[in-house]
Amino acid sequence: MFSQTSEYALRVIVYLAGCDGEPATNQVIAAGTLVPRGYLAKVLQTLSRSGMVKSQRGLHGGTILARDPKGLTLFDVVQAVDPIRRIESCPLALLAHGKQLCPLHTRLDQAIGGIEKVLRNSTIADLMESKSKHQPKTLCEPPPNHPKRKPNRTAR
Amino acid sequence: MFSQTSEYALRVIVYLAGCDGEPATNQVIAAGTLVPRGYLAKVLQTLSRSGMVKSQRGLHGGTILARDPKGLTLFDVVQAVDPIRRIESCPLALLAHGKQLCPLHTRLDQAIGGIEKVLRNSTIADLMESKSKHQPKTLCEPPPNHPKRKPNRTAR
Repeated sequence: MFSQTSEYALRVIVYLAGCDGEPATNQVIAAGTLVPRGYLAKVLQTLSRSGMVKSQRGLHGGTILARDPKGLTLFDVVQAVDPIRRIESCPLALLAHGKQLCPLHTRLDQAIGGIEKVLRNSTIADLMESKSKHQPKTLCEPPPNHPKRKPNRTAR
Repeated sequence: MFSQTSEYALRVIVYLAGCDGEPATNQVIAAGTLVPRGYLAKVLQTLSRSGMVKSQRGLHGGTILARDPKGLTLFDVVQAVDPIRRIESCPLALLAHGKQLCPLHTRLDQAIGGIEKVLRNSTIADLMESKSKHQPKTLCEPPPNHPKRKPNRTAR
């Protein structure tokens, strides 16, 4: 249901929220989120354009989250990269329908509205904590020996 | 949020439900649903494979709905052509997560579950009637003079 771009953008934002303002290089973010480097550059560019992250070049450069995770919702992130679009008028452009939706598109729009509600009600800060001791943390450290999941957040 | 294929399949099923068992040719269905002919053939093939519609060739051939609209949900149709997939295990395949979802993917799965619920609770029969006198009917007849929306359901 969610595009790869949305999934990646959410991982990146959660990752940066966990860095507490310390700039992270693309290499480190890619390793911590398992987002391919080329795709990551594209996602960061879009997030930067929306003002959600700030990047700085140079020796101690990197990307930081530019928004407070407590005020930033999953919906904000998804809308910045691959917006959820409500059905606002007849997709068939039937003149007889105008702005009124038929039962089919009313139902489909209700379903989309439900997604929107869940995403609006969750902040990035909410994702930083597990709800129970059995729930794993978002982007938890991978096992140290695992081939594809080596770098950790402090390595830069 | 919904793919073009799902949207088209839903239109086709609603259209066929309105034909009350009378076979409709591809030409007529395409005109009544505004689904491009090539795309329609593909969608009908998938729906036929799932047993949702039946097609018969020949002079009086065409496609009919093979299921009772009262027992056929929007979810059934979407699942037949472009299935909604719940998040059942960590998309990052983090070994530490296993089958347990982190807060991010729990939330995303909740959103997808919400969509599933709305679609499961709506039958095709529900879509055949408007909820108020102001609501237009699903796939209502287009205005007769409109260039792209001429054919009607009885023409074959």
